[in-house]
Amino acid sequence: MVHSLKTIEWKDNKVVMIDQTKLPNDLVFVEYDDYQDVANAIKTMVVRGAPAIGVSGAFGMALAVLHSNAQTKDDLIKDLEEAKKILIETRPTAINLMWGLEKIMQVALKGSDVSETKQSVIDTAKKMADEDVQTNMTMGKLGSELFDDNDTIMTHCNAGALATVAYGTALGVIRAAKESGKKVKVIATETRPVQQGSRLTAFELKHDGIDVSLIPDTAVGYSMAKGLVNKVIVGADRILRTGHVFNKIGTYQIATMAKQHGIPFFIAAPLSTFDMKSNPEDVVIEQRNASEVTGIGDKKTAPDGINVINPAFDMTPPELISGIITEKGIAKPPFEESIKKLFEENSNS
Amino acid sequence: MVHSLKTIEWKDNKVVMIDQTKLPNDLVFVEYDDYQDVANAIKTMVVRGAPAIGVSGAFGMALAVLHSNAQTKDDLIKDLEEAKKILIETRPTAINLMWGLEKIMQVALKGSDVSETKQSVIDTAKKMADEDVQTNMTMGKLGSELFDDNDTIMTHCNAGALATVAYGTALGVIRAAKESGKKVKVIATETRPVQQGSRLTAFELKHDGIDVSLIPDTAVGYSMAKGLVNKVIVGADRILRTGHVFNKIGTYQIATMAKQHGIPFFIAAPLSTFDMKSNPEDVVIEQRNASEVTGIGDKKTAPDGINVINPAFDMTPPELISGIITEKGIAKPPFEESIKKLFEENSNS
Repeated sequence: MVHSLKTIEWKDNKVVMIDQTKLPNDLVFVEYDDYQDVANAIKTMVVRGAPAIGVSGAFGMALAVLHSNAQTKDDLIKDLEEAKKILIETRPTAINLMWGLEKIMQVALKGSDVSETKQSVIDTAKKMADEDVQTNMTMGKLGSELFDDNDTIMTHCNAGALATVAYGTALGVIRAAKESGKKVKVIATETRPVQQGSRLTAFELKHDGIDVSLIPDTAVGYSMAKGLVNKVIVGADRILRTGHVFNKIGTYQIATMAKQHGIPFFIAAPLSTFDMKSNPEDVVIEQRNASEVTGIGDKKTAPDGINVINPAFDMTPPELISGIITEKGIAKPPFEESIKKLFEENSNS
Repeated sequence: MVHSLKTIEWKDNKVVMIDQTKLPNDLVFVEYDDYQDVANAIKTMVVRGAPAIGVSGAFGMALAVLHSNAQTKDDLIKDLEEAKKILIETRPTAINLMWGLEKIMQVALKGSDVSETKQSVIDTAKKMADEDVQTNMTMGKLGSELFDDNDTIMTHCNAGALATVAYGTALGVIRAAKESGKKVKVIATETRPVQQGSRLTAFELKHDGIDVSLIPDTAVGYSMAKGLVNKVIVGADRILRTGHVFNKIGTYQIATMAKQHGIPFFIAAPLSTFDMKSNPEDVVIEQRNASEVTGIGDKKTAPDGINVINPAFDMTPPELISGIITEKGIAKPPFEESIKKLFEENSNS
């Protein structure tokens, strides 16, 4: 039942990715055998989506050990630290990237010698990719219970197969709802400035035969006011213990409009997305290049010499969220309690 | 003090317009001497903005009489009715277009013979253009009192010189605030899908030396949550007697976010924008071409064969609006009363 698009894969000691900057016009696969190229791919959004860049980070670390000339384990760890530094700087807000890199570091530190450490890093990265797909399918099954037959579901950005190794988080839930026999339709927001909604979500839903309508980001309020939307589901780049959700710019205003119209607003994200330490004011929201807003491709859509505010993410407060779907269950308000419980159950199991 | 860009002008028995589809890259003027070309210009957004298309409609009628071969007044009126029909179909939601066309029809019906009727239609259309500039300057002066030194003002779409004959409605108020000595900055939303914010508002504000920052439509909530916005001002395409405002798609969600953050939300529009007869549910919101959302210029940004919802306007309810600035004064809540008063005072003066 896994979606046929494989976003990221370890193949013959190389990392193979779909170049998402070429979608929806061309489905192109790129191969990397240098972690610096993987870092660049994350930075330029060849690969994007929190879970996918978590696994990409891990695969970057795998390439770093593979090509390291270190003769001692200490030197190998130094090489890994250097790779980690370069990889983390590509997308500082995404907690999964940090999670992926640290998980690899922990495994590496436990290795007994150079050769065994190299192998265990590579094996762990591959396992993380496999687990991502399993996690999404579990999350999809749990989350699909929240949706009804004939629902029209709004989603923002791309929390789909293309944001993960395969299947997707928010779109995984939609896939699971459809696979369970419910007729569901999707309204996808364009998601300016990078247009993940039109380029990726519309592309992969159409690829899977799921009914999808595209709207400009300005038509969220209209669609809800006209009664076209029954539920909203999006992914997350970072979730705090308080239930504050950092996700693609524009999420906050969609959540606000949903609340105003009494429409349930759900998040779907694996436990690796949670940051149990930070407070809302601690999280740095990265600003992206002005050129994303002042033009599209080679087409200039704004005059030269103006200021641009182009934040990658915004923060949705817990009072706007109806539930957070994870692979270990669904957290409901009050989130401080329910999120804590997810992690306790998780560590007990 | 009038802005140097003249959006639409009657010159040597022709209508001269800035081709706004070419902005911000090229400032091109186009000339029409056939009303059907004017209708097409309105339809394809060579000219846009409620007051500008009101005057464009009147100029279209002027071209229709100028080139009419009618030998009797009855035949001339028939030609005008035909032109009116074609012109009104271009943008059915915009009340100013209806207002412009009907004003011309009333003048024409009063004419004594063919030649005098032709002249009075042309003179009236020219007078409407002059009055539009005067109206905007009066509105600007009245509205500027609502703004403070060092305000950062968010605006949506283009309610500027380029939406009117010159000076602008919402941007006219911002110009007047600046001319009164207040330091003001502007945050302009991109305004997908047609990008009037980046292409036109950023262009004309930069042209006038007003500090402007461009944001994607998704960053409205972020900008307000970060405290970057003190006030919001937008134009209107149609205002009902109840204070319901039809304006560019995306206005409703900006108004909702402003309310949520306690930020005053103002409308600036001349009395010709008011529709004192219709109820909210009567107003038809036109759907525009899907291609506006699935691509930009020649660049395709969405897969083929998907559905698109692309409404031109949305409706902002009166409870989200702090004040409506007109050339006859500022209406404040409760709007049903204050709007009625504006028209009573107007007819008494």
